[in-house]
Amino acid sequence: MTITGEALIGGHAVRGNGGSFQAFDPSTRAPIEPAFHMVDAGQIDEACRLAEAAFDPFRATSNEARATFLETIAAQILELGDELIVRAMTESGLPRARLEGERGRTMGQLKLFADLLREGSWADVRIDSALPDRQPLPRPDLRLRMIGLGPVAVFAASNFPLAFSVAGGDTAAALAAGCPVVLKAHSAHPGTSELVARAVVKAIELCKLPAGVFALLTGTGNGIGQGLVAHPSIKAVGFTGSRSGGQALMGVAAARAQPIPVYAEMSSINPFFLMPEALAARGEQIATAFAASMTMGVGQFCTNPGLVLGLKGPEFDRFAEKAAQALSSIEAGTMLTAGIASAYQSGVHKLAQHEAVDALKEATHTEGKGGPALFRTSGKAFLTEQALHGEIFGPASLLVACDSVDEMRAITESLEGQLTATVQMDEGDTELVRALLPVLERKVGRILANGMPTGVEVSTAMVHGGPFPATSDGRSSSVGTAAIQRFLRPVCYQNLAQSLLPDVLRDDNEGVWRRRDGALTKA
Amino acid sequence: MTITGEALIGGHAVRGNGGSFQAFDPSTRAPIEPAFHMVDAGQIDEACRLAEAAFDPFRATSNEARATFLETIAAQILELGDELIVRAMTESGLPRARLEGERGRTMGQLKLFADLLREGSWADVRIDSALPDRQPLPRPDLRLRMIGLGPVAVFAASNFPLAFSVAGGDTAAALAAGCPVVLKAHSAHPGTSELVARAVVKAIELCKLPAGVFALLTGTGNGIGQGLVAHPSIKAVGFTGSRSGGQALMGVAAARAQPIPVYAEMSSINPFFLMPEALAARGEQIATAFAASMTMGVGQFCTNPGLVLGLKGPEFDRFAEKAAQALSSIEAGTMLTAGIASAYQSGVHKLAQHEAVDALKEATHTEGKGGPALFRTSGKAFLTEQALHGEIFGPASLLVACDSVDEMRAITESLEGQLTATVQMDEGDTELVRALLPVLERKVGRILANGMPTGVEVSTAMVHGGPFPATSDGRSSSVGTAAIQRFLRPVCYQNLAQSLLPDVLRDDNEGVWRRRDGALTKA
Repeated sequence: MTITGEALIGGHAVRGNGGSFQAFDPSTRAPIEPAFHMVDAGQIDEACRLAEAAFDPFRATSNEARATFLETIAAQILELGDELIVRAMTESGLPRARLEGERGRTMGQLKLFADLLREGSWADVRIDSALPDRQPLPRPDLRLRMIGLGPVAVFAASNFPLAFSVAGGDTAAALAAGCPVVLKAHSAHPGTSELVARAVVKAIELCKLPAGVFALLTGTGNGIGQGLVAHPSIKAVGFTGSRSGGQALMGVAAARAQPIPVYAEMSSINPFFLMPEALAARGEQIATAFAASMTMGVGQFCTNPGLVLGLKGPEFDRFAEKAAQALSSIEAGTMLTAGIASAYQSGVHKLAQHEAVDALKEATHTEGKGGPALFRTSGKAFLTEQALHGEIFGPASLLVACDSVDEMRAITESLEGQLTATVQMDEGDTELVRALLPVLERKVGRILANGMPTGVEVSTAMVHGGPFPATSDGRSSSVGTAAIQRFLRPVCYQNLAQSLLPDVLRDDNEGVWRRRDGALTKA
Repeated sequence: MTITGEALIGGHAVRGNGGSFQAFDPSTRAPIEPAFHMVDAGQIDEACRLAEAAFDPFRATSNEARATFLETIAAQILELGDELIVRAMTESGLPRARLEGERGRTMGQLKLFADLLREGSWADVRIDSALPDRQPLPRPDLRLRMIGLGPVAVFAASNFPLAFSVAGGDTAAALAAGCPVVLKAHSAHPGTSELVARAVVKAIELCKLPAGVFALLTGTGNGIGQGLVAHPSIKAVGFTGSRSGGQALMGVAAARAQPIPVYAEMSSINPFFLMPEALAARGEQIATAFAASMTMGVGQFCTNPGLVLGLKGPEFDRFAEKAAQALSSIEAGTMLTAGIASAYQSGVHKLAQHEAVDALKEATHTEGKGGPALFRTSGKAFLTEQALHGEIFGPASLLVACDSVDEMRAITESLEGQLTATVQMDEGDTELVRALLPVLERKVGRILANGMPTGVEVSTAMVHGGPFPATSDGRSSSVGTAAIQRFLRPVCYQNLAQSLLPDVLRDDNEGVWRRRDGALTKA
């Protein structure tokens, strides 16, 4: 398939009216052909209006029809063949195995939502039967179901060019919910985006759905995204990126005549706790696994462990030494974009200069690359220096040597919201962990024992989310089937005739889980 | 029980440090004893800090313990006896029967949430079993449950001094979710608020819960509410009131260092559709019922029908005539506050002056009272004049004579978000309603056929919510068991030992609904 540098609006390739830009190969720092044409305000408007017009017919499709659509997208992505993998490698600097795995995950996500649709209980059907003889007043027949919020603006993420981009998690969840998607491509991988978008458009044709169900908008800078979020046809936003970018979109969404929900995944340092018994028994083993986790994908995972908490002492020192040693054999890797690499380099430089911080492993990196870096500070310094709490996106981590368990707890209380917290523990640590758990529950979306936070399972029980600033809305997950809920709202039907009720609410729609007079049943 | 005019913080009556005010009897416009003492910033801070400290122990209580607590609150409210009813009558101008009914509803809500807690599935338990042999990577054990967001600021509503005030819907939902509540009393009924708050504090004592689980803050003006929403210990807000008040709190919440969700129910004109066959067959009968609905409680219900849409013609004229006639026999009633009465009087005056509007029934009202008012305009005028779309809180409604079904649909599309839409229909109207339903689903939280929107059932399938500006967050309901979800967020536990898992996630906690590997089961 030829990459033309066009946007996709209304099922057609459309040359953007707003100037052009090129993608860069981060490993060679050379521009890649062809030029991409940026959409202008009129083209954003057209895409959003088409999405709005497509919303009613699209959400009226059956669960089976939308499940088939999601599976068709997955099949069409596979159809793109090696061209997709090669283009994504060139644009992202990520290796083939990672991108092939990510393609598998992307297809798996689409199929998981197809299964969810076929199972049907996502609509949260509730039926309260009429009680015509109740005193003092009769009860009407009341039936609730969830429907989609409306067209969703999804922003592709730089660090997952497939699984959190054009046909990634937010897109799959929104389409499953019956919401059209207007996708803002990431300017770091516009060719990858165009290829996947063409696969989605092909699936729309094959499934005979309205063309407005999906659009791809291409461009650089903040104007397109802000224009998209401000558009009155857009009813929700999915975003993965920087804290400043996410907060800017939150501001635009809140300032609209009709404010809309924003699901922005932004910033997390993913605290990693070394409990005393585990540290004593297997500190060096943990250090090796930790070094591998924090440098995986050149540290560019949202769940990268950027903060390690333990009790100071010889065991902690050995952990630090072993981790630094493991990191020293790991070379600097090409980062996703020149901007990310330079932000990383300046972040670690700044941390190394901090008077309360010792550098255990200095980052050695050249242009466009990021080398692993390990720092150490005291619990006291961490508590007083807010500058040490920020995320450095890349393969860097800060070890915090705590004076006591109480200090470790105080530090945990001082943290902002996080995606994950990992506890390395042995049986003798159980009571310490038990005391820490309530704090962790308040701070994070996922609590792990004895694993590594990198690597996010796509399943029913996953939560990839957390209190602000990990995300803009801690009530939601961006990964797993729970993500469909972010794009839904409830509607209640009172005393409607069976013939007017949506299928899922009719008496004869047995076999799908429903809550009847408060009790779950399939009958 | 003596009303002392004090706040309740930490389980104790505390005299506010911030000046005093008195309640007014809206029917006599005379002040009522005693004086109420307004809390100052330090007292707000104390209440919020105590709530934060109480959050972990409170949410750790069992479902049974919190169910008993809610039932104890209900019992303690009943214990207040007639003093509560008399005080509420004096402060609100509402009649005894209404307030006795509202007390019953308030107690019923608390008991409904108690039942929900005992049933247990509100925690949305999901368990994905470990797959240690999966290729290429094993799957960890993943378990999800919902937990409370944290301390909730609840604002009492003027129009439901019991059911949406101190121990009203938001308070019941928040306490059920394990969230402490800091309650901002409404200055229109501070004595009623103090009595109910003392019942809640008594229930806390009887159930041996932390005193910080509940506080009552007393005062007038916007400062206390804004200070409360800005406080870092507060993690969510429940509000029922004016659009300007709700939007001000949304602004405060969004401007915090950590933004928090706001559930503000604000403004709704609740469109009421007269479909042609129903209008022809029983227009006069509908008119009589409509007049009763729009004047119920002096029109001070959130779901009051403020907009009537029908096709112009003799049937519509007869409906208008009959409705005006029915209204002419209904006297002006005492409104909740002098402010509400004067806003109503100026609202109907302004509408009567509008050049595109005819007054079918002029409001006759004296100081503090609101008389029913009925207006009429054309579909064309309604479409072009945004001034006709606003809510007039009180017993007023605007009839819109549409040229065609298409114009009626266009008007529906032009509406802002609403709590309800009511369709008066007969069998021959079915296809017209079917075509209108998708638009209504996008615009409102509850769609009724052949009923009146006033009167909100408190049950499992109820939705009392809707897109902005009906509420600030159309993903949520403030009435019924679905309301617990507004104060919850998901947490995932990965590979935690059984002994560390919360009870509800343990393998041996059978009998409560859970989603195991995607499928609902009690096993």
